[in-house]
Amino acid sequence: MLLSSLRHEVLAANLELHRLGLTLYTWGNVSGIDRESGLVVIKPSGVPYEALTVEQLVVVDLADHVVEGAMRPSSDTRTHIALYRAWPDIGGIAHAHAPHATAWCQARRALPCLGTTHADHCRGPVPCTDILDAADVAGDYEAATGAQIVATFSGGGAPDHTTTPMVLLAGHAPFTWGGKAREAAYHAVVLEEMARIAALTLALDPQAVALPAAIADRHYLRKHGALATYGQRRP
Amino acid sequence: MLLSSLRHEVLAANLELHRLGLTLYTWGNVSGIDRESGLVVIKPSGVPYEALTVEQLVVVDLADHVVEGAMRPSSDTRTHIALYRAWPDIGGIAHAHAPHATAWCQARRALPCLGTTHADHCRGPVPCTDILDAADVAGDYEAATGAQIVATFSGGGAPDHTTTPMVLLAGHAPFTWGGKAREAAYHAVVLEEMARIAALTLALDPQAVALPAAIADRHYLRKHGALATYGQRRP
Amino acid sequence: MLLSSLRHEVLAANLELHRLGLTLYTWGNVSGIDRESGLVVIKPSGVPYEALTVEQLVVVDLADHVVEGAMRPSSDTRTHIALYRAWPDIGGIAHAHAPHATAWCQARRALPCLGTTHADHCRGPVPCTDILDAADVAGDYEAATGAQIVATFSGGGAPDHTTTPMVLLAGHAPFTWGGKAREAAYHAVVLEEMARIAALTLALDPQAVALPAAIADRHYLRKHGALATYGQRRP
Amino acid sequence: MLLSSLRHEVLAANLELHRLGLTLYTWGNVSGIDRESGLVVIKPSGVPYEALTVEQLVVVDLADHVVEGAMRPSSDTRTHIALYRAWPDIGGIAHAHAPHATAWCQARRALPCLGTTHADHCRGPVPCTDILDAADVAGDYEAATGAQIVATFSGGGAPDHTTTPMVLLAGHAPFTWGGKAREAAYHAVVLEEMARIAALTLALDPQAVALPAAIADRHYLRKHGALATYGQRRP
Repeated sequence: MLLSSLRHEVLAANLELHRLGLTLYTWGNVSGIDRESGLVVIKPSGVPYEALTVEQLVVVDLADHVVEGAMRPSSDTRTHIALYRAWPDIGGIAHAHAPHATAWCQARRALPCLGTTHADHCRGPVPCTDILDAADVAGDYEAATGAQIVATFSGGGAPDHTTTPMVLLAGHAPFTWGGKAREAAYHAVVLEEMARIAALTLALDPQAVALPAAIADRHYLRKHGALATYGQRRP
Repeated sequence: MLLSSLRHEVLAANLELHRLGLTLYTWGNVSGIDRESGLVVIKPSGVPYEALTVEQLVVVDLADHVVEGAMRPSSDTRTHIALYRAWPDIGGIAHAHAPHATAWCQARRALPCLGTTHADHCRGPVPCTDILDAADVAGDYEAATGAQIVATFSGGGAPDHTTTPMVLLAGHAPFTWGGKAREAAYHAVVLEEMARIAALTLALDPQAVALPAAIADRHYLRKHGALATYGQRRP
Repeated sequence: MLLSSLRHEVLAANLELHRLGLTLYTWGNVSGIDRESGLVVIKPSGVPYEALTVEQLVVVDLADHVVEGAMRPSSDTRTHIALYRAWPDIGGIAHAHAPHATAWCQARRALPCLGTTHADHCRGPVPCTDILDAADVAGDYEAATGAQIVATFSGGGAPDHTTTPMVLLAGHAPFTWGGKAREAAYHAVVLEEMARIAALTLALDPQAVALPAAIADRHYLRKHGALATYGQRRP
Repeated sequence: MLLSSLRHEVLAANLELHRLGLTLYTWGNVSGIDRESGLVVIKPSGVPYEALTVEQLVVVDLADHVVEGAMRPSSDTRTHIALYRAWPDIGGIAHAHAPHATAWCQARRALPCLGTTHADHCRGPVPCTDILDAADVAGDYEAATGAQIVATFSGGGAPDHTTTPMVLLAGHAPFTWGGKAREAAYHAVVLEEMARIAALTLALDPQAVALPAAIADRHYLRKHGALATYGQRRP
């Protein structure tokens, strides 16, 4: 069996989404990539989390061929592949229809940074893509979805996918990513909580304003980068 | 004991509603039909899920006579029967007062298709019936409820009960159905999630617009029909 | 030990409130009365549910004297006593600060009957008391609270405490009651769900209208009174 | 190992926050102080609750030097220290990004006392601090946060930290405190519930008015101070 260690990591990340209540039944999927071989391990399509095993995970290459596995890979596989091809620094991707983040997608609103819970994990708002047009949907829909995500993070003034590891797909649901599958799943959980708290905030004050940049930066840099002080020193 | 296998299936579907938090105490009911014999297995009235057994389930025929069972069938039995008589292609029905779907019923609003979570499971909005008039209520109320559901899916421009396997009863709660009791319960769970996410969406944007038809169709057809690609190939 | 059977019943009803998430820590209390002796069994004040035992329950008489028990009874005991004295047909009372019902109390709004979930359990709206005035608060506050509840159900046009077994205290939280302690706790759980669904309904339509009387009556009478058809025949 | 008994108390208080759902992953922190030695026991930074042990807790002095422990203390340690130095009567402090209380912080609104659930635990509204200015953020941010909390409770007309044992940090999340770590955690849980019920109340009535002072005082004094009648007599 190929990539045994990565398979265990991807299984654990899939189960993490389910344990924290982000998924119903077979919904959602997490993948991880082995950059040396260019192979991706991903959840099979339509399999419930309670029954998911390491062996059922599917190995695909970056050309979307199944390399190992008796089952079909997630129907969102080509979206994952598009992100892995565009961003060589990411190692894992998660997708779930968790209710609060999905509501922001359906409202087609970027998620503003209203407080430090958001700023601890993400620089600036979480962008919301445009809605796909009929031509994109008629062709390779899943690849078009991936291309659209990449476009959202490209060009002048666009957010940086390394410091904003998450996106809201208009009319659909979020994708999140990170260095490892575990981190991608972590970002899915965090985004759901950010989305929930932001909605509760707007219910109390529809005009709530963004956190000042000085505080947002301070919080982000406490946790990320060379000067981070959060957590334990790593040798 | 008649219909042992169907009884196990119907018990499991009833417990599924309860496990996922759609029911309180004795509320709600799921049934399944054996089309060969025309017999329906349904939850007994007023029995808590924690104590429910295969033996307690009640067998009724399509004329609403108890064929086997020491207990009274669900008080909604005649509504189930009306749907089984009208739609020969369904095999299971579920009814629960889950809070989000019930709120849409009480608001007497059809549930719009605002995103792919909805489109994955249902084509177009989930319709809301008219409120029953006093004459219907004074007569055979449960049968009139069933007749009203059937009418909601009949005639030009009405939704199709095979692709919209769910309805909101104005002032009451939803009914859902499917090929099997298990699928009916699944649709009840999915509807609750669709209703919850739609309400969260409208709180963020009261003018939120429907998902474009091209995306909605694409998602529905990924999961349903001859060209479906979701899930595992069935031999 | 007096009233062993009633003690077990009252303990179970207290734990039921906690099991269903209506109480935090030591909050809330349920009592039951033995009408023959006129003795009330009630939760001790400030004891957490996890540790509550049959022996810790306190027995008081209708003059508010502790008859048996080493602990102080609930600080709301005199409110319970006022209801037992006014209404000889009730056997149990429950009080909890469950969030949705408490929000209606704080908004000082009667809970309208917007659907059959409500109508299955309660005839007409759940009334909300007036806010107590300073003089009542300065005197025997708990007894004044009880007197105010009784007044809410007295006089022409007032709701009937037998068919509306629940009340919202303005600025405080609800009280519910029933033939037994278990039924009082059941009504507390049901009221919380009614309150939650009504709030979700008003979020979807602030002008949502009451269920027509014909449907409300039909549902109430399916479950209550001589002609009830819900549940199992009792010999 | 120093302060073994205080370590166990602080561990239990940290776990209590997690058990009641106020924290995700490593978020939040609780500390306790030994007033004799002036030493503070606090959660290490970035350690998940599921794995937290008594040995991992960090001992710091009031000058922010680590006295015992192999791990870094919470990144919020200097905020805790500022409160311990300002208020000699407190023995424990808790901080969590629980969603409802955090939403009030992000909306930068004081939490009004709308009912007795609030009045039972806190006199008057829970204040919300001003947003920190860029200069404070650029310097010792955590100490500045602590200084700002202390300032919120200082001067004429300010709330009293002994009867209002909680504060909302604008754009951030709450801090709560008490005589012991356990009490600080209890206040965090209570504040989350107060914040949730207040938000539900405002959704039902955006103009909801404060509880009259007579009732608020009555409830607070039933539970606190020399004349308290709630709970069991302590010898």
